[in-house]
Amino acid sequence: MADYRDLWKSLDMDLEKHDQLCAVLPEFYGDIYLSQENRPEGMNYYNFVVSEIHGLRIKELAEHKEKGGKVFGSFCVFVPDEIIFAADAIGVGLCGGSDFWIPDGEKVLPRNMCPLIKASVGAKLSGTCPYFQSADLLVGETTCDGKKKAWEILDEYTPIHVMDLPQMKREKDKIHWIDEIKIFKDKVEELTGNKITKEKLEEAIKLINKKRAVLQRLYNTRKAENLPISGKDALLITQIAFYDDPNRFIEKTTELCEELEARIEKGESVFKEGTKRILVTGTPMAIPNWKLHHLIETSGGAVVCEETCTGSRYFENLANEEAENIDEQIKGLANRYLGINCACFTPNEGRIDDIIRLYKEYKADGVIYYSLPFCHTYALEYKKVKEALDKEGIPVMMIESDYSLQDAGQIKTRLEAFFEMLDSSKNEKEVAATK
Amino acid sequence: MADYRDLWKSLDMDLEKHDQLCAVLPEFYGDIYLSQENRPEGMNYYNFVVSEIHGLRIKELAEHKEKGGKVFGSFCVFVPDEIIFAADAIGVGLCGGSDFWIPDGEKVLPRNMCPLIKASVGAKLSGTCPYFQSADLLVGETTCDGKKKAWEILDEYTPIHVMDLPQMKREKDKIHWIDEIKIFKDKVEELTGNKITKEKLEEAIKLINKKRAVLQRLYNTRKAENLPISGKDALLITQIAFYDDPNRFIEKTTELCEELEARIEKGESVFKEGTKRILVTGTPMAIPNWKLHHLIETSGGAVVCEETCTGSRYFENLANEEAENIDEQIKGLANRYLGINCACFTPNEGRIDDIIRLYKEYKADGVIYYSLPFCHTYALEYKKVKEALDKEGIPVMMIESDYSLQDAGQIKTRLEAFFEMLDSSKNEKEVAATK
Repeated sequence: MADYRDLWKSLDMDLEKHDQLCAVLPEFYGDIYLSQENRPEGMNYYNFVVSEIHGLRIKELAEHKEKGGKVFGSFCVFVPDEIIFAADAIGVGLCGGSDFWIPDGEKVLPRNMCPLIKASVGAKLSGTCPYFQSADLLVGETTCDGKKKAWEILDEYTPIHVMDLPQMKREKDKIHWIDEIKIFKDKVEELTGNKITKEKLEEAIKLINKKRAVLQRLYNTRKAENLPISGKDALLITQIAFYDDPNRFIEKTTELCEELEARIEKGESVFKEGTKRILVTGTPMAIPNWKLHHLIETSGGAVVCEETCTGSRYFENLANEEAENIDEQIKGLANRYLGINCACFTPNEGRIDDIIRLYKEYKADGVIYYSLPFCHTYALEYKKVKEALDKEGIPVMMIESDYSLQDAGQIKTRLEAFFEMLDSSKNEKEVAATK
Repeated sequence: MADYRDLWKSLDMDLEKHDQLCAVLPEFYGDIYLSQENRPEGMNYYNFVVSEIHGLRIKELAEHKEKGGKVFGSFCVFVPDEIIFAADAIGVGLCGGSDFWIPDGEKVLPRNMCPLIKASVGAKLSGTCPYFQSADLLVGETTCDGKKKAWEILDEYTPIHVMDLPQMKREKDKIHWIDEIKIFKDKVEELTGNKITKEKLEEAIKLINKKRAVLQRLYNTRKAENLPISGKDALLITQIAFYDDPNRFIEKTTELCEELEARIEKGESVFKEGTKRILVTGTPMAIPNWKLHHLIETSGGAVVCEETCTGSRYFENLANEEAENIDEQIKGLANRYLGINCACFTPNEGRIDDIIRLYKEYKADGVIYYSLPFCHTYALEYKKVKEALDKEGIPVMMIESDYSLQDAGQIKTRLEAFFEMLDSSKNEKEVAATK
């Protein structure tokens, strides 16, 4: 990696502490990712992105800022990147996925709070995340109590704009959300000094749609009988989608998709026969939270899809590209975003439909419901999801886990038992079918 | 107590389990309440109400229902009782404050959830709360993630209408809230078959205002140098205000206030000199959650005010009685309710102002910040409150505790240390003043 110390210094980072963070990642990544066999060639690009995680992209952001461009940092799939890019600004996802940042987060937040929020706040407070340091404005949202109130604390350290996501999806809530997008647009125009015209917004909508479409194409390859890519590789790609340059990301992911589709043609798989196909549903996994996927894929399972914010919720709906004026474009965006079935909504029956649909589309054998600790909305929604899956005869197991590796052994044991159970229930079905 | 078994049976209650609940309360109440010395005569009424807690009032509700009246159960100070009473219906607060209901709540809710929500849901599921059983409709709200998603689960057992409280207090949010009140009004009219006219609503606004005003009068007596009533007695009265017949409550509490005001005239106190005056701020205390008050008042402190939903947030603002038409009345109600500074709002600076103001008005010596476990909004807001109080030189201590009595000894120790610290900081101030 090139020497970025001067760059980091210019971003007012805590270099010494940052060195500690940088020292851990390569080995961690190597163990989890580079140890995989028969990885697609195209994964080399994402290896490179990770190796340059606090380097090349940060340099690009700095160059963009030198030319007068602005950078917006966000924490949620509901923040409309289209608006940001339409003002020639750059949006980057900032959710913290590392245990490293938790102690700093706990200096200002209660301990019994979800690790994603603690790590995100800790990343800012510790001055060890160059993405936070590059952001001209953070964009929060009111998706959960923890985040909603954490923004008030972050606001003491750095400017933040909060978008008020409605809690329901009635017509009046849609109008409220359209209005929130308009307020955000004004804010983005004000900060960047750039007017968001119909043309600019159309261009940005097409760009972000294209990014989402290539992720759809990638995920489609995971529907194949023979899996051409591991779940953890796919997860990594989605995580990178949140902050990489969109055009380059689209190009590189398209190349990868071509390779994966060729693999499917040839019937090539990265997993051995009999590996259990698992749909993961639940809370987001921010980079470098690869824990659950790694445990699943080293215990006899393969993750075939994520019904999460770092999965299908991020890319499933595309925004309308054909709108005739800016009001219609924003309405289209509002529809696109309110199509996401997050547990923050009440009711949220659409998520159950999504899970059942994805389970079938990806030919999954079982579902793992993943929840970060103290995430009330997802933890509470488990009951309804479980009841619906039981009714459909879809096996499901709940795993609540934070970023630490202390419970890895215990989770592995539970996973193995779950996969065994999937085997026996499959055998029963086959026996029943031949009768 | 009269025999209400037939009544309870008619409400489809679990009589055996209910007997277990009833068996505990008298001794618990006796130990905490009846052991107090020099209690005001007027407290006899509230003793009676508690002794008849699942009796007389339930009979009244049954008689009301026999005559075709409806009963609405709610869980939050944001649900506008005025609308309910304007339709000749009765509103009762249903928040669960007993450990007894937690195990039943945990059958359908995650364990790491606030005890108030678990107890409330458990009270319904166990069939041991005649108020739940009497309600024709429950009214939930979106004040926190836990409640928002718990309503979805309760909805499987009993009809529930959810009011979407905004998360901010901008003009557009006020409009949203006005609309929510209108939707609620339609719902109440539909269920009761009674039209809410301008006259009926005015009458109800005046009634509920009168109830709030008598609570203000009660709380004013706690501003006196010599406290004529204990904090736990005052808390009990506010708790009872949520479900008692409003007219009788107003009458009896007025009588009590007269007695207390006479006590103030005579300089009579229920506490000995040197008792520390404590402002409690934080999460609600549902009946029979008297734990913190009891611990404070048996450790050398006296609670002089509660900046909580079972305290000042319930009665501080009155609704406009002079509105000229129903739209203006509803606007007045919306203003009244959005004047409440709950931690569910972002930002919520008004609460800090309230705490400082109440601290001064009630001549408190210190503040205890009370939070039920896993209440993200109040736990997170502590940081900002603490910083503001530090700046004002107001001592504050955070106590997080559920309904169990296991941590009573530990809390007592912390309280005693806090009160001692208040003594020494007061001495320091006095020494400084004489220099």
